[in-house]
Amino acid sequence: MTLLLLSTPERGKIWPRVFAEAGEDILVGEQAVHDPSAIEHIACWYPPKDLSVYTQLKTLISVGAGVDHLPALPEGIALSRTIAPGLEAMMRDWVVMATLMSHRDMPMYIAQARQGVWKAGSVAATGKRTVGILGMGRIGRLAAVSLLALGFRVRGWSLSGATVDDIEMFAADDLDVFLAGVDILVCLLPLTERTRGILGDALFGKLPRGARLVHAGRGGHLDMTALARALDDGQLASAILDVTEPEPLPAEHPFWNDPRIVITPHVAAQTDAREGAMHALAVIRAVREGRPIPGLVARERGY
Amino acid sequence: MTLLLLSTPERGKIWPRVFAEAGEDILVGEQAVHDPSAIEHIACWYPPKDLSVYTQLKTLISVGAGVDHLPALPEGIALSRTIAPGLEAMMRDWVVMATLMSHRDMPMYIAQARQGVWKAGSVAATGKRTVGILGMGRIGRLAAVSLLALGFRVRGWSLSGATVDDIEMFAADDLDVFLAGVDILVCLLPLTERTRGILGDALFGKLPRGARLVHAGRGGHLDMTALARALDDGQLASAILDVTEPEPLPAEHPFWNDPRIVITPHVAAQTDAREGAMHALAVIRAVREGRPIPGLVARERGY
Repeated sequence: MTLLLLSTPERGKIWPRVFAEAGEDILVGEQAVHDPSAIEHIACWYPPKDLSVYTQLKTLISVGAGVDHLPALPEGIALSRTIAPGLEAMMRDWVVMATLMSHRDMPMYIAQARQGVWKAGSVAATGKRTVGILGMGRIGRLAAVSLLALGFRVRGWSLSGATVDDIEMFAADDLDVFLAGVDILVCLLPLTERTRGILGDALFGKLPRGARLVHAGRGGHLDMTALARALDDGQLASAILDVTEPEPLPAEHPFWNDPRIVITPHVAAQTDAREGAMHALAVIRAVREGRPIPGLVARERGY
Repeated sequence: MTLLLLSTPERGKIWPRVFAEAGEDILVGEQAVHDPSAIEHIACWYPPKDLSVYTQLKTLISVGAGVDHLPALPEGIALSRTIAPGLEAMMRDWVVMATLMSHRDMPMYIAQARQGVWKAGSVAATGKRTVGILGMGRIGRLAAVSLLALGFRVRGWSLSGATVDDIEMFAADDLDVFLAGVDILVCLLPLTERTRGILGDALFGKLPRGARLVHAGRGGHLDMTALARALDDGQLASAILDVTEPEPLPAEHPFWNDPRIVITPHVAAQTDAREGAMHALAVIRAVREGRPIPGLVARERGY
C-alpha cells in the first residue's frame, strides 16, 4: 500500500517522518517511483498528467480542502480531499476577522489612514447585522458558531438547506429570500459548475442596498467586473477578498487601491504538513480495512 | 431628584424620552437650570466648571466608561461611570477583530496592497499564540472568553490578579513574568496615574522579540516615540491602535503611513444613547433607595 506524494518541499520533508512513525510506505516525487504498479495512493495538488501507468491506483488525495482544480478521474479511483481541523479553524478565524472588519468599516478606516484622516463613523452593535453564509459545510458551521457568539444574527444557505443548530437555513431554491435579509454576505462555497460566477450582477442585485461582501471561496466564484459595478453603484458598500480572479492579482489592478476593498493573498488557511499527512494515513487505513474513506468527494455533486 | 444632562444633541433628544417613560425629571443643558439646588445628579462627559452652585448634588455620572478626564470631585459627591452592556460588547468586538488582524499579519497585507503586492506569508494556528490582556475588568473578561473560544492561549494581568475562570492571571508585581510569555499584548487598562505611559520602552523590552501590540485603552497609556523605536528595532512587529497621543492624530504624523501600524479613530465603542439613559435611571433609583450605586468609581484607586 505505497503512497506517492507529489507536493511541496516542506511536505516532502515532514510526511516521510509521519509515515515512518506509523510504519507506512511513502515515496516522494515521481522520480522515486521504479514500479508504478506498487503505488496505490497519490497525494498531490496537481496530479501526474498520465495516471494510467499507476495500474493499482485506488485513491487520489488532494492535499488541500479544495478539489475544483482536479480533472475528472478514471472510474474506480476514489477522490479524497484533506480534512484538517487546523485548516478549518484557520478559515474560521479569517472569516470571523473579515466579517468583523466588514462590520466595523475597516475598509473605510484603512483608506482614511492612507490620507492621514482621523474621522470617526458611528458604531453598530453586532446584533443589528445579519451575516449570511453561502456554503454551510464544516467551515461554514464553525464560522456560524463564532459569529453567533459575537451577537450577529446568522443565516445559512446550502444546496440541501439541511438543518444546522441555531441557524436559520435556506435551500438552493430559496437563494433570493436568503439574500434579501443579508447585511454581510460570506462566501464559503466549493467551486463547481453550478457555483462558478455566482457572485455576479444578479446575486448582488438581490442583496439589500449597501450590503458587504466577505469572500473566502475561490476566485472563480467572483465576477470582478460585477463587483466593481456594484461598489460604484452603491449596491455594495465594501468587499474583503481572500481570493481573486486571476491569482495572483496583477500589481496594476485597480482593486488594490480601491478604498472599499481589502485584499489578502489567498492566506485564509494553509494545511499544516503534519495534519495533511495524518489525513493521508487515515485514508490508507480506511481503504485497507474497507471502511468509508475520510474526505471522500462526491464527484457527481462537483465537490 | 432632577438630573441635569450636559452632553451631545443626540443624547439630548433621546434621554428626555427615556426619562419621561420612566416618570423621572430631567433637564438638558445648563441654560435650562433655574434653581441649581434642585439638581441632584449631573450626567456629562465634561462637568460644569463650577460645581459649587449645585448645592444638593449627590452624583456625577460619566456618560462614557472612562473617568480619567474628570477632575477630583468635592467630598460627598459620588462618581458613577456608565455601565453599558452594548458598549462592552462593542469593545470586545474591536479587540477580537484587532487581535485576529494582528495574529494574521493584516498590517503587512494592508501595506502590501498599497504597493499592489500579492505575497502570501505563512499562517499560524491561534493555538500557537498567547494573548496577554492588560486590564481584566468587564471588557477584558468578555474579550478573553471570545479569544479562548477561537483557540488562543490567553493570560490576564490586573492590579489584584484576582481569579478569572479559565484564565491564567497575574497580579501587579508579576508584570514582568506576564509579559515574558505574551505574543500579542492587548491593553484595556483604565488611565490612572499608575498606568499613564505604561506602554513604553521598559514594558516593550520585556515582551518576547517580535511581539504585537493591540491598544484600546487611552492615548495616555502609550509612549508613541517608544512604540516607533520598538518597531524600528524589531522588538515589536506591529501595532493596532484605536487610541493615540494626541487625538486626533495629525494628518502629517508618520504612523498613518507606517506599514506596521493600523489605526482606527477611537471607534472601538460608542455608548448607545438609550443604554446610557438606562444607566442614569438605575443610578437615580439606587440613590433614592439607598442601594449601592451602579458603576460607582473608587476614586482612590483612580478608576
